[in-house]
Amino acid sequence: MQRKIRMGMVGGGQGAFIGAVHRMAAALDGFIELVCGAFSSDPERSRASGRDLLLDERRVYGTYREMFEVERSLPESERMDFVAIVTPNDVHFEPAKLALEAGFPVMCDKPLCLNLEEAKTLASVVEKTGLAFGLTHNYSGYPMVKEARARVREGALGKVRRVVVEYPQGWLATRLESTGQKQAGWRTDPKRAGASCCVGDIGTHAAHLSEYVTGLHIEEVACELTTFVDGRPLDDDASMLLRFEDGARGVLWASQIAIDEENDLNIRVYGEKGSLEWHQEEPNSLVLKWPDRPRERVRSGANYAGLTPEALGATRLPAGHPEGFIEGFANLYRSFASSLLDGTTPDCPTVQDGVRGMAFIEAAVASSKADARWTRVSP
Amino acid sequence: MQRKIRMGMVGGGQGAFIGAVHRMAAALDGFIELVCGAFSSDPERSRASGRDLLLDERRVYGTYREMFEVERSLPESERMDFVAIVTPNDVHFEPAKLALEAGFPVMCDKPLCLNLEEAKTLASVVEKTGLAFGLTHNYSGYPMVKEARARVREGALGKVRRVVVEYPQGWLATRLESTGQKQAGWRTDPKRAGASCCVGDIGTHAAHLSEYVTGLHIEEVACELTTFVDGRPLDDDASMLLRFEDGARGVLWASQIAIDEENDLNIRVYGEKGSLEWHQEEPNSLVLKWPDRPRERVRSGANYAGLTPEALGATRLPAGHPEGFIEGFANLYRSFASSLLDGTTPDCPTVQDGVRGMAFIEAAVASSKADARWTRVSP
Amino acid sequence: MQRKIRMGMVGGGQGAFIGAVHRMAAALDGFIELVCGAFSSDPERSRASGRDLLLDERRVYGTYREMFEVERSLPESERMDFVAIVTPNDVHFEPAKLALEAGFPVMCDKPLCLNLEEAKTLASVVEKTGLAFGLTHNYSGYPMVKEARARVREGALGKVRRVVVEYPQGWLATRLESTGQKQAGWRTDPKRAGASCCVGDIGTHAAHLSEYVTGLHIEEVACELTTFVDGRPLDDDASMLLRFEDGARGVLWASQIAIDEENDLNIRVYGEKGSLEWHQEEPNSLVLKWPDRPRERVRSGANYAGLTPEALGATRLPAGHPEGFIEGFANLYRSFASSLLDGTTPDCPTVQDGVRGMAFIEAAVASSKADARWTRVSP
Amino acid sequence: MQRKIRMGMVGGGQGAFIGAVHRMAAALDGFIELVCGAFSSDPERSRASGRDLLLDERRVYGTYREMFEVERSLPESERMDFVAIVTPNDVHFEPAKLALEAGFPVMCDKPLCLNLEEAKTLASVVEKTGLAFGLTHNYSGYPMVKEARARVREGALGKVRRVVVEYPQGWLATRLESTGQKQAGWRTDPKRAGASCCVGDIGTHAAHLSEYVTGLHIEEVACELTTFVDGRPLDDDASMLLRFEDGARGVLWASQIAIDEENDLNIRVYGEKGSLEWHQEEPNSLVLKWPDRPRERVRSGANYAGLTPEALGATRLPAGHPEGFIEGFANLYRSFASSLLDGTTPDCPTVQDGVRGMAFIEAAVASSKADARWTRVSP
Repeated sequence: MQRKIRMGMVGGGQGAFIGAVHRMAAALDGFIELVCGAFSSDPERSRASGRDLLLDERRVYGTYREMFEVERSLPESERMDFVAIVTPNDVHFEPAKLALEAGFPVMCDKPLCLNLEEAKTLASVVEKTGLAFGLTHNYSGYPMVKEARARVREGALGKVRRVVVEYPQGWLATRLESTGQKQAGWRTDPKRAGASCCVGDIGTHAAHLSEYVTGLHIEEVACELTTFVDGRPLDDDASMLLRFEDGARGVLWASQIAIDEENDLNIRVYGEKGSLEWHQEEPNSLVLKWPDRPRERVRSGANYAGLTPEALGATRLPAGHPEGFIEGFANLYRSFASSLLDGTTPDCPTVQDGVRGMAFIEAAVASSKADARWTRVSP
Repeated sequence: MQRKIRMGMVGGGQGAFIGAVHRMAAALDGFIELVCGAFSSDPERSRASGRDLLLDERRVYGTYREMFEVERSLPESERMDFVAIVTPNDVHFEPAKLALEAGFPVMCDKPLCLNLEEAKTLASVVEKTGLAFGLTHNYSGYPMVKEARARVREGALGKVRRVVVEYPQGWLATRLESTGQKQAGWRTDPKRAGASCCVGDIGTHAAHLSEYVTGLHIEEVACELTTFVDGRPLDDDASMLLRFEDGARGVLWASQIAIDEENDLNIRVYGEKGSLEWHQEEPNSLVLKWPDRPRERVRSGANYAGLTPEALGATRLPAGHPEGFIEGFANLYRSFASSLLDGTTPDCPTVQDGVRGMAFIEAAVASSKADARWTRVSP
Repeated sequence: MQRKIRMGMVGGGQGAFIGAVHRMAAALDGFIELVCGAFSSDPERSRASGRDLLLDERRVYGTYREMFEVERSLPESERMDFVAIVTPNDVHFEPAKLALEAGFPVMCDKPLCLNLEEAKTLASVVEKTGLAFGLTHNYSGYPMVKEARARVREGALGKVRRVVVEYPQGWLATRLESTGQKQAGWRTDPKRAGASCCVGDIGTHAAHLSEYVTGLHIEEVACELTTFVDGRPLDDDASMLLRFEDGARGVLWASQIAIDEENDLNIRVYGEKGSLEWHQEEPNSLVLKWPDRPRERVRSGANYAGLTPEALGATRLPAGHPEGFIEGFANLYRSFASSLLDGTTPDCPTVQDGVRGMAFIEAAVASSKADARWTRVSP
Repeated sequence: MQRKIRMGMVGGGQGAFIGAVHRMAAALDGFIELVCGAFSSDPERSRASGRDLLLDERRVYGTYREMFEVERSLPESERMDFVAIVTPNDVHFEPAKLALEAGFPVMCDKPLCLNLEEAKTLASVVEKTGLAFGLTHNYSGYPMVKEARARVREGALGKVRRVVVEYPQGWLATRLESTGQKQAGWRTDPKRAGASCCVGDIGTHAAHLSEYVTGLHIEEVACELTTFVDGRPLDDDASMLLRFEDGARGVLWASQIAIDEENDLNIRVYGEKGSLEWHQEEPNSLVLKWPDRPRERVRSGANYAGLTPEALGATRLPAGHPEGFIEGFANLYRSFASSLLDGTTPDCPTVQDGVRGMAFIEAAVASSKADARWTRVSP
């Protein structure tokens, strides 16, 4: 990097989970500096958050509109270089659109928006402005996910036949939203989360991961959404059959009621020549399976023999020194920030991935309403 | 036991896999003795097999019909007490029916028959004769499967919500049947295997396991069968959504093309109060998951504190001394043989489980033909 | 086999653990038949055990002396072919010696005797009589242990540098012997167990395994024995440094007070070119480690590509069908029994291994008394 | 924090491994800012490194002496608050002493110095100056290590009996130092590394971890150091028996020639009432073992029920979101930096731990020279 990149943030005030993750991910490599923010819809809370973060109080804003306006007017050497949007789903579209229109590249949490229509509009704004737009499908930032993708792409597994992807969690096994827990509150509220809770929150991660690793698009889903917890207006569990391009078949299961599953996103891909398996909770290993020789455990690590360049570029430590969630997340930020200086294409999910994600959610919801009928994913 | 139980065998000649398993399972505890057999449809091969097994050559028969006739005429103190049928699927119905009609209890390999109609006929013969009939859904013989079932039954998990059951294998990832491999030959041949290869062979095990552990019946399936290997007339992969009684939902995936998966039957059950997980390839551990305390690893073992009587009765060794496939299988045989002497109900799958299995296969095939439409399992 | 081999048993009456294991191991393959026994020093208990085992009551003996005398006088076609000795350590030497002198080959539980002197005497009797003698260091019967040994022998790991072998258990973490538990009683009693509890019971297994896998003898030990449980006259924990032939170095830790360790014998061997790792509680996997390519998981299984003949000959099932403790144990019996008919050398630990084991125990005890001074193992 | 803490760095120039780790660990939480450095003994290299790190070139120094002098003269609001020393072992003592004498608190990489004498001198300087001094035995920063320590301290395991601690690596299995690899060069050079390679580099981590978790000091060691790679002047493997205070016994094995072991520091502690196990390569799980109930897996995570405050304070993410090496390392930095502002005692290893570490190295070397004689650790 020739200089530090300056980041502004929308959302992520005191008590928020994902905002803190974005900040740590951005800070890790020492090349991105948080310079300003509108951390909460409550201006007082925003200011308190800014103080916690040791920001210059003049750059802690009451609203994102204000932030975009003021920052825009600052000298180029001072003003933020991009904005990170880390709010609930219903506050993605507007700040993202306004930021782009004000000339700021955007790093946005997923899912992209509240619905497919918003998503398409946003994609057209991105296209029109020509600005960088990143979406934090952060699991694609893990070195071993990149290794998996590279192996599939280079043909090591042959033609892909079967995908099994899961994302079980248990945190919504009871009616947590009725206790006032903030994240549970908005995730289960259709107005703030959109048409789905489980698919929107984690199903899209699973779908993105499966497409990222295999390089194949999901074309159709036959889905059953379930709400196991009484009184919850959205789904808390989703199981579906998938049809990928080119004849590959998939199973996707995501759940928020799977007691004591923490964050067990995992994927298995079976091809004509070999198979692979990866688990987010043990992210530094990738298992390769072969028909005629022993199963192999490939490991993340800067010194690990035989890693693909894609994986090597995403690891910071020697093998055996665990890199985790923040490091994977940081890879998206590092690549995104670099691209702002050198104009390269960042290795980071795009607004188009976000549009696909919204189409996936809508197809899943529609299929479930039609008693699991095969339904096209139409981004 | 007051005396040794005498077993006759249909099938299981030289080179057969499952026949040898049945014999080891029967022999393990020292209470069952193989006394006769019709080991092959080729009388010469049958005799050679009998010699290998050190049987009296007068009790090695050319056909099972002959065996039933001759054995029936022997003095009670000599003749076989029951017959084990370990042939391909198309040679289950007739020998089982004949054996029962000749007065011999039957232990039969799964799936029960070639189709649901045969299965129902056989069930009526069992009922008419009043003889014992066991079906080797052997995975239910594992101590930790019994522990899982007991825990669910006693309510430790609360109401069951979600089941995920898988049975991946990779042995049919290429067209093995064209190399002359015997088992591949008949499993992929509709005339010998029935309407399905993958569901018939292993999907039924997965379905049975899920019903055994949860105590719930599968009511409907939405299934996609796939044949990934060109030129194969039957499915080699099956994915399906399940609806159990009482609102529980399931995913079942079975595959024979999942390269380097060996025999990885596994099940996860999620309830309102807790979860459990079991893997056949590490059969002596059962994982229990709780919302508010650490995950527990329960272990098989005669000295293991807190095991349910169901599991304790199925384990022969102290914890840490691995018991495997044969030992689990042997539990079915031990219970079946005991019941012949003391008239108790054996702890062993029944002809009714077999009928359910055939109905499950037919529903899966029908659903797949109807583009994964929800289809009732109607035994 | 041309005929069934007839086995007699010394010890293993009602309530005994290891006697039942020997019987199941012998029965598994259908080639060995238990025909007689002196199951207990209490004749009534012996008879009751014989009844449980469905033996002809004329061949259930009150003492082993009687058994050897009577069996010897039976016609060759009836009398036992060999005797299995499954008593506590203090009742190995005499029955073994007498059996050999009466012309009966012997399969004996480990450790061989009460002390090195007895062991050497017994070895000379074996030599004099020229009869087969097997010692159940049963862990060497596991397929993956044989695979490990074969890999080391063929040079895959290069020159061996470092061995780490452990055998932790927790069953003696409290003073179990004071509750009347039978095995705890004699294991902790110097008169019945010999000079060591922990080394004698499990340390010898660990030492044998390390020598079996590496093909190297342990030459010197620096050992600290500890008795953690008050009032126990023998050690319940042993840690030692090892010097093998040819410069290899080892660490051996065995313990009976390691709470919730069940039977976790495990070994790691590090050579100049690669490493290996094996765990008894997951016996069907062998991990191979390389400097320049991914770690491999080799699996037991009759159909597993690339297994050495040594491992293939010791597996009965396809990969993924777990084989366990009894199956590994049974490999010793199968090989021993075969050798009685065809005169081949059985693939089974010998009386010389037993002598080495006793020398190992004595060296460990002597070293510990001398404050862990390096002490030669002198069989 | 009231303000950002300013860090200077000695060492860690281009190509160094551990310097980059220190920087990421310091940066992660956004409260520490790298403001200056003397990154290399080669001033040109130091400047190039400073440019890479986007530092003001006036604060990139040619030598640490210069840095201390210049920084000292800067206004308080600008000058560095503390210095991180991340050089090879032979360049710890002097810069640490000078920094302290110039009034700068120090965070120093381990082992503390080249020998015990230097270490004691340094400790007295720390005492004299009264300044904060941290030592990066970073593994004590992991949440589950803190959980382990808290559980032992609260008596959950009862009196500690047996410790097994290992630190296997394989990176020095060949003569890597002869290829020009920088770290291998100095680690195997007695002038730069001190009296030991393996014990100094990783054995001290293992020893510190065992003392940290158990709360017990190692009093005596019986050690065998080995040099397996020809021509290497220092040990590359160490095995030892340990005697802790209060009767606990230990085994420690550390190795740099264990092929394909990456960084597998691990510890097991066995007490009178329970046991625990932790592995650095899967740092977010802690296994607890009990005599009478199932083994438990405790997990790191901000939302994990029942965690001790010590662990909770060291975790940044919900359970299932892996935290790794950098996060654990960062806990030391966060605590150290906080303490500079608020005067609290940091939760970070101290100079006294460093003195103990040097005494441990010297005892291990002396014991090995005396043929593994028990040797006192005398800090």
